[in-house]
Amino acid sequence: MDKDLARLKEILAEVDDLSRASALLEWDQQAYAPRGSAEARGQQMGSLNKIGHERFTSPETGKLLETLKKIAKDWDPDSDDARLIQVTAKRHERAVKVPSAMVVEKAEITSLAAQAWQEARAKSNFPHFQPHLEKVLEWTQRYAELFAPQDHPYDALLDEYEPGMKTAEVQAIFDNVRPKQVELIKAIAAKPAIEESMLHQHFPEKAQWDFGVEVVTAFGFDWERGRQDKVTHPFMTNLGYGDQRITTRVYEDFYNAHIFGTMHEAGHALYEQGIPKKLARMPLYNGASLSVHESQSRLWENLVGRSKPFWSYFYPKLQKVFPEQLGKVKEEAFYKAINRVAPSFIRVEADEATYNLHILLRLGLEIDLLEGKVAVKELPSVWNERFNAYLGTTPPDDAKGVLQDVHWSYALMGYFPTYALGNLVSAQLWEVIRRELPDLEQQIAKGEFGALLAWLREKLHRHGAKFEPQEIVQKITGSKIDGAAYIRYLQKKFGEIYAL
Amino acid sequence: MDKDLARLKEILAEVDDLSRASALLEWDQQAYAPRGSAEARGQQMGSLNKIGHERFTSPETGKLLETLKKIAKDWDPDSDDARLIQVTAKRHERAVKVPSAMVVEKAEITSLAAQAWQEARAKSNFPHFQPHLEKVLEWTQRYAELFAPQDHPYDALLDEYEPGMKTAEVQAIFDNVRPKQVELIKAIAAKPAIEESMLHQHFPEKAQWDFGVEVVTAFGFDWERGRQDKVTHPFMTNLGYGDQRITTRVYEDFYNAHIFGTMHEAGHALYEQGIPKKLARMPLYNGASLSVHESQSRLWENLVGRSKPFWSYFYPKLQKVFPEQLGKVKEEAFYKAINRVAPSFIRVEADEATYNLHILLRLGLEIDLLEGKVAVKELPSVWNERFNAYLGTTPPDDAKGVLQDVHWSYALMGYFPTYALGNLVSAQLWEVIRRELPDLEQQIAKGEFGALLAWLREKLHRHGAKFEPQEIVQKITGSKIDGAAYIRYLQKKFGEIYAL
Repeated sequence: MDKDLARLKEILAEVDDLSRASALLEWDQQAYAPRGSAEARGQQMGSLNKIGHERFTSPETGKLLETLKKIAKDWDPDSDDARLIQVTAKRHERAVKVPSAMVVEKAEITSLAAQAWQEARAKSNFPHFQPHLEKVLEWTQRYAELFAPQDHPYDALLDEYEPGMKTAEVQAIFDNVRPKQVELIKAIAAKPAIEESMLHQHFPEKAQWDFGVEVVTAFGFDWERGRQDKVTHPFMTNLGYGDQRITTRVYEDFYNAHIFGTMHEAGHALYEQGIPKKLARMPLYNGASLSVHESQSRLWENLVGRSKPFWSYFYPKLQKVFPEQLGKVKEEAFYKAINRVAPSFIRVEADEATYNLHILLRLGLEIDLLEGKVAVKELPSVWNERFNAYLGTTPPDDAKGVLQDVHWSYALMGYFPTYALGNLVSAQLWEVIRRELPDLEQQIAKGEFGALLAWLREKLHRHGAKFEPQEIVQKITGSKIDGAAYIRYLQKKFGEIYAL
Repeated sequence: MDKDLARLKEILAEVDDLSRASALLEWDQQAYAPRGSAEARGQQMGSLNKIGHERFTSPETGKLLETLKKIAKDWDPDSDDARLIQVTAKRHERAVKVPSAMVVEKAEITSLAAQAWQEARAKSNFPHFQPHLEKVLEWTQRYAELFAPQDHPYDALLDEYEPGMKTAEVQAIFDNVRPKQVELIKAIAAKPAIEESMLHQHFPEKAQWDFGVEVVTAFGFDWERGRQDKVTHPFMTNLGYGDQRITTRVYEDFYNAHIFGTMHEAGHALYEQGIPKKLARMPLYNGASLSVHESQSRLWENLVGRSKPFWSYFYPKLQKVFPEQLGKVKEEAFYKAINRVAPSFIRVEADEATYNLHILLRLGLEIDLLEGKVAVKELPSVWNERFNAYLGTTPPDDAKGVLQDVHWSYALMGYFPTYALGNLVSAQLWEVIRRELPDLEQQIAKGEFGALLAWLREKLHRHGAKFEPQEIVQKITGSKIDGAAYIRYLQKKFGEIYAL
């Protein structure tokens, strides 16, 4: 048995090494690779992923897991090894269900779809994308069926990002949240708009960059085990133990993009920097799920980074960095500006109060598409109709509407809800943190984040992917994921800002 | 047969993808990776190399090669496919001869030896390194025996870097070169030393960098298919078709290091940027050998970059970049300074005229060690004795003597001669180029390198690794590698500079 476990870990380590190497290929492509490398780079990532998949789904891995699953029944169910077997066996079951022909087919369909999407968005021409999306949807429907029987075909998609979560659970959570959030936004819309022109001045890149570095260093980002680089679309990547990298962008004519993006990616990185070395090179060397991951990025970006105590410490420093731009802008005005609520057509530009509604729109559409209740060709009109119902306005064209996100062209259905769930979890965690660290606001107002990070490490980060999202949230907060804390948070914060 | 060839190419493409990904891991580690990543990075490279080796030496690959070798007898022997089978079969034969236990053993021995070497060099303490080098040597002797029968055990080592070349050939080449080179250096030593203090001023990094970029851009380095980054020990790496990267360093207090290092690595990159796409993802997507590769780096660094016509075009530009440092320094004085001959203890700091002697010293010692004629413990004294005989001076300590190079600690024996062979080949090629491009000097004096690069592409680069080094040199120059052209080149150039 010890030998079987050791052999399994050896295989998993190689699979992990391949996937981290592939992550470096991707990081490099986003950050540094010359244009001419695109084709070869795609082939290289394809080979690494294929070989990793082959090793992971090999008969040997399957046999080892069968044997170890039986033995693991006698182990402490919360031990690293028992959880490793459980998590790995589940992934393995999913992986072997997918015929390699379907993997190849997906690569072909999505590679064409991604290109068509880019062209379609540029010209706001949905019909150009439509036949590709139809193929993606048809593939996704077949894919979901591979995991039957299940309560809902969408369960199969969701489970990939949120292990153990069911469509019905997610729907119930959001059914509670939506009316309250819509109501809040209506109340805000009735109030005078907040002035935010001071954010749209010229902020030189290097000064922005240095200030961002100062902030995430204060958060606790470990530069001995990470770095930051510039890209077009920011992301965080984990390249193996001791190497968690953040990427960011800088707009010289709009301050928010850089600073909040940087805090967001640093939040992801702090999570992975907190996973202990003993879990490295295994499927447990990961966040619990995408939503739990997003809870960390949102916590540092919003709960910390858009809070009053945070800026009471950092705003005077920022004024020193940008005396011409912000010297005469009061802290209160700046705080309100970075928290301004205004429905935008584009999800990635949305504020804290409206963001979830963008997601709920997409979640509903994905489920309806999968069930066949909405046809692909109807998407633009259904999008606009529902958008108006949620956010009180209608996109001027499809580029700013149904065509804005890349996800569907890559067959990433089931992914969007993780963003909104992350927001909910961040607020749930925050309520517990505030109880357990009563002077947290005072600490943040002194630029001290050590106790906060230590708490997150102890309660969440150190477990890596040992627990499913609902399990770990329950463990930490005493209840499963729900939206009540997030609604309380929004109502209190924006109630104050907008004097509701 | 078409199917077998296609399948072989599929396997080779995956093996190549793995090795390019590993090269990116290495590049990143040298250029950007945070310190904390070292252990995980080592494991990742280990896994990729192991998997690549397994695929390449698998029974399937062996069987395909057996079948194809028979069929390929009927093909045009110079066709890409025939050469592919030939080159691959040879590599495969070598690879399967090495038991994986010996590969693991080497990794263990050299990892300890490399660490001990670093400590030993820092303290100039050879006895600290001695037991490790003894183990490396013992391993190397066993390794060489795997390839018996052969004319000389050193053949096995040499063949890895210079396919097809024999120890006796290399010895004969250098036996001709050595006395003439020693004689030349003695003649130079009798002349007054050249003034070079103008090279040891403060040259700000960015200005050096930009000027280097201007030079290699003029050479024809394609930035759409490559980039340049800063590292401690410069190298060139090929990350797959369309991505050949150079790395460089900058010393602000000594001008030579940056500019000639940059031209050197650009020379390597120009070679690989000239290999056609049809050879990509195969063993043919490579230089012919290390010496042929070095002939390209040396050609651009020395034959072009240390020449009079080159600086007649670029020196006025350089003076504009560094008016305070060089404004009053005449071109002739600068030209002589960058070509100053002065025996140095350290190989990597050696000038064109003395460089080869550093190599000949090492080549002789490697052969004597392998044959058991010199024992490891005798190395320091034998080193100093021979160094004095070749270069007329004795290192003050072992750190500046036998301990200076990292190669032996990594079991890289057989590697050194490729550097000196590269010098010889560069001069052999240059004589042909000068005949076939009669106005080359005038072109260089106008900053034009297009005809030179086109010639190199047509004669050498486009063949990739299709031909063995002696074959391709014979094909281009009409004779095999020999030192006559290099000696003529040195005598003429330094005869003029030193008025011999």
